[in-house]
Amino acid sequence: MQAKLVRIGLLGCGNVGAPLVHMLREEGAAIAARTGLELAVTRIAVRSAHRDRDLPDLPDGTLTTDARAVAADPEVDLVVELIGGIEPARELVLSALANAKPVVTGNKELLANHGAELFAAAEAAGRDLLFEAAVGGGIPVVRAVRESLLGEPVGRIMGIVNGTTNYILSQMTDGGASYADALADAQGKGYAERDPTADVEGFDAGAKIAILASIAFGARIVAGDVYHEGISAITAADIAFARSLGYVIKLLAITERIDAAGPNPTVAVRVHPAMVPVTHPLAAVRDSFNAVFIEGSSVGELMLYGRGAGGRPTASAVLGDILDAAGNLVRGAATPLGSFGPAAICPIDELRSAYYLNLEVSDRPGVLAQVAGAFAERGVSIRSMEQEGLGDEARLVFITHEAREADVQATLHTLRQLDSVRHIRSLLRVIG
Amino acid sequence: MQAKLVRIGLLGCGNVGAPLVHMLREEGAAIAARTGLELAVTRIAVRSAHRDRDLPDLPDGTLTTDARAVAADPEVDLVVELIGGIEPARELVLSALANAKPVVTGNKELLANHGAELFAAAEAAGRDLLFEAAVGGGIPVVRAVRESLLGEPVGRIMGIVNGTTNYILSQMTDGGASYADALADAQGKGYAERDPTADVEGFDAGAKIAILASIAFGARIVAGDVYHEGISAITAADIAFARSLGYVIKLLAITERIDAAGPNPTVAVRVHPAMVPVTHPLAAVRDSFNAVFIEGSSVGELMLYGRGAGGRPTASAVLGDILDAAGNLVRGAATPLGSFGPAAICPIDELRSAYYLNLEVSDRPGVLAQVAGAFAERGVSIRSMEQEGLGDEARLVFITHEAREADVQATLHTLRQLDSVRHIRSLLRVIG
Repeated sequence: MQAKLVRIGLLGCGNVGAPLVHMLREEGAAIAARTGLELAVTRIAVRSAHRDRDLPDLPDGTLTTDARAVAADPEVDLVVELIGGIEPARELVLSALANAKPVVTGNKELLANHGAELFAAAEAAGRDLLFEAAVGGGIPVVRAVRESLLGEPVGRIMGIVNGTTNYILSQMTDGGASYADALADAQGKGYAERDPTADVEGFDAGAKIAILASIAFGARIVAGDVYHEGISAITAADIAFARSLGYVIKLLAITERIDAAGPNPTVAVRVHPAMVPVTHPLAAVRDSFNAVFIEGSSVGELMLYGRGAGGRPTASAVLGDILDAAGNLVRGAATPLGSFGPAAICPIDELRSAYYLNLEVSDRPGVLAQVAGAFAERGVSIRSMEQEGLGDEARLVFITHEAREADVQATLHTLRQLDSVRHIRSLLRVIG
Repeated sequence: MQAKLVRIGLLGCGNVGAPLVHMLREEGAAIAARTGLELAVTRIAVRSAHRDRDLPDLPDGTLTTDARAVAADPEVDLVVELIGGIEPARELVLSALANAKPVVTGNKELLANHGAELFAAAEAAGRDLLFEAAVGGGIPVVRAVRESLLGEPVGRIMGIVNGTTNYILSQMTDGGASYADALADAQGKGYAERDPTADVEGFDAGAKIAILASIAFGARIVAGDVYHEGISAITAADIAFARSLGYVIKLLAITERIDAAGPNPTVAVRVHPAMVPVTHPLAAVRDSFNAVFIEGSSVGELMLYGRGAGGRPTASAVLGDILDAAGNLVRGAATPLGSFGPAAICPIDELRSAYYLNLEVSDRPGVLAQVAGAFAERGVSIRSMEQEGLGDEARLVFITHEAREADVQATLHTLRQLDSVRHIRSLLRVIG
């Protein structure tokens, strides 16, 4: 079989691009033997042509600083966008599609903000736009949701999709570290940026769950639709209480369908720390690993687990997409993205969840009755309570039955106004 | 958008077929809205037209007992084979492909024995042959391996791919049941057949790992290539020893590539109980759940977890394949299976593994030296040993460093001939 040449233009050649070039070199013969595709990286757009890169020998003229020229080059068949960020990535992806080139990207920010525009451009061009690497690094979750579960009525997706925060929480849980020490450790190991905001406040996870929500529900859901709470307020005490109650604390990115089936779904989409039962498969996801847990009414429970970041795992996901897009291109086909309708976003106030609440109160008769009264007033039912003495104070730890977020917030408001309540230490949602 | 009609002929309408018909009915409108495909089950071949079935109302003439007529019917566009077994399923699948109809099947036995013939027929017809449901029920592992990991140098796959045996071992581990009681419980719940041989002796898992090995390594590997050991000899004492050493016992289906990259791989493929460290993600797979753990040199560690059996989860996998095949058919495309070359199968004697060995010996001076000498004679290095008294006997529990299977078997042979060795209670491979 004569292998069919597919010429790849690579935009960006850093942490993911460089291992991708190596993989294509190392695996090229095996890939050609199995698929009949000869994949050649013929153009690489970089920011500076003079920086040293860990790359194999490349023909002269492969490297360029003109990304626009690569996206439009008639001698490039397929474009891989690994620049990240919104501009110029957006413009370059649109240009490649307009020039009838399939595009593979790992750009979560771009997809979570401009997905609908890009999907429409791909559909109009009749070319693939594939983005496995945008969510969960090497974990094939995008393909599972886009293809395997296309006919499945997905009810909820819960993901540990940020390795940095999972590493920090694992260090706090397994190593007893404080948040500050665990963050410093993560920064020392290169897992966290010097400014860790995007990770620890849940923005990175938010972009990823917006993408998963879009493809799971066939709806236009963007990063701005996602409610966020980060992990910076989680204390060693919260972790210890969670453990004593049979839970671990994880930063979860969650999307769920609130209404019954039908077009134009009502969807909740949020990122926050949550108490996860130790027996739940997500509880065993440690260190910087990622996992996505999917609940469908037919398929039941599914979980996909693996390396959510890192150059080689992410390059592996990009390579899977390149093979798919290159094969389709050679056959003159494309995998359609399907239609994306509008979605109604359920406000966080309407969330129904169980809650964990940790209060410090005066240790005197009648206080528990007063606190319990504040719950009762808002119809928030208490599932369990533990009390421990703290000198002249006491700590009350509650887990509620499922309640409406707005009612729990109103309960908190009442509690704050009681003289006997000294501090509200924490409020965490509990996964059932 | 005018939906494109794809007429489905269903061969077999039992445990998986009936929920599939319901799902197509329930989700048909949502699927048409997202994909532009109108999926209609127009013919259903059953063994007896008179048996009551849990099916929605169907037009007269939908049910037939003539499966051959459905596979060849010019008014059927796509065939779903859910009969199981080798004949007549093989003949029907070949007939459908010869009639240019894509085929979706969940038939592990057929694929594990006649995969190469069927793949060649699909390739010749230019039509899809999809089989997600054949391995791991609702878990999208076939698609992950066939598509996402097509360019990934997969090193090893370890699967818990038989729910019956995982249920039995979970009952023994978590509930302290004996093998006989756990098997009876599984039979009572409908997880195990009256004759449980195919499950407990590893034949079902063997067919599944042969399929995964074929698609992971692009090689012709059949059920007959798989080495089998079942779980019927596992005792409550083995489970307890494993626990005390930090392991759980799981029935694993394993395939690994022994040689370096290149065509015509050397592959090991086997099913046997193994000791899995409690911290390994596979150790947390309980009850009748399945999981497949994949190691690749770029992607690192991946695990896919979910419902490995059951009508609705399996029907969900079939539906995902139907959507893929129907979409391809409408676009005049097919996802190629790639080439499958010959493979050399590594004999079990050449396996390199760590081993757990449990011996009962006479409790007198010099016995340990004698036993240790038997290991040393074959170059099998001991990593840890524990001794406990049993009246006038002692129990010796060894874990070895990685050793060759043939050397460990030769050590056993020597041990059996020592007067001081009363019983060799068990030998289990240990996952590192």
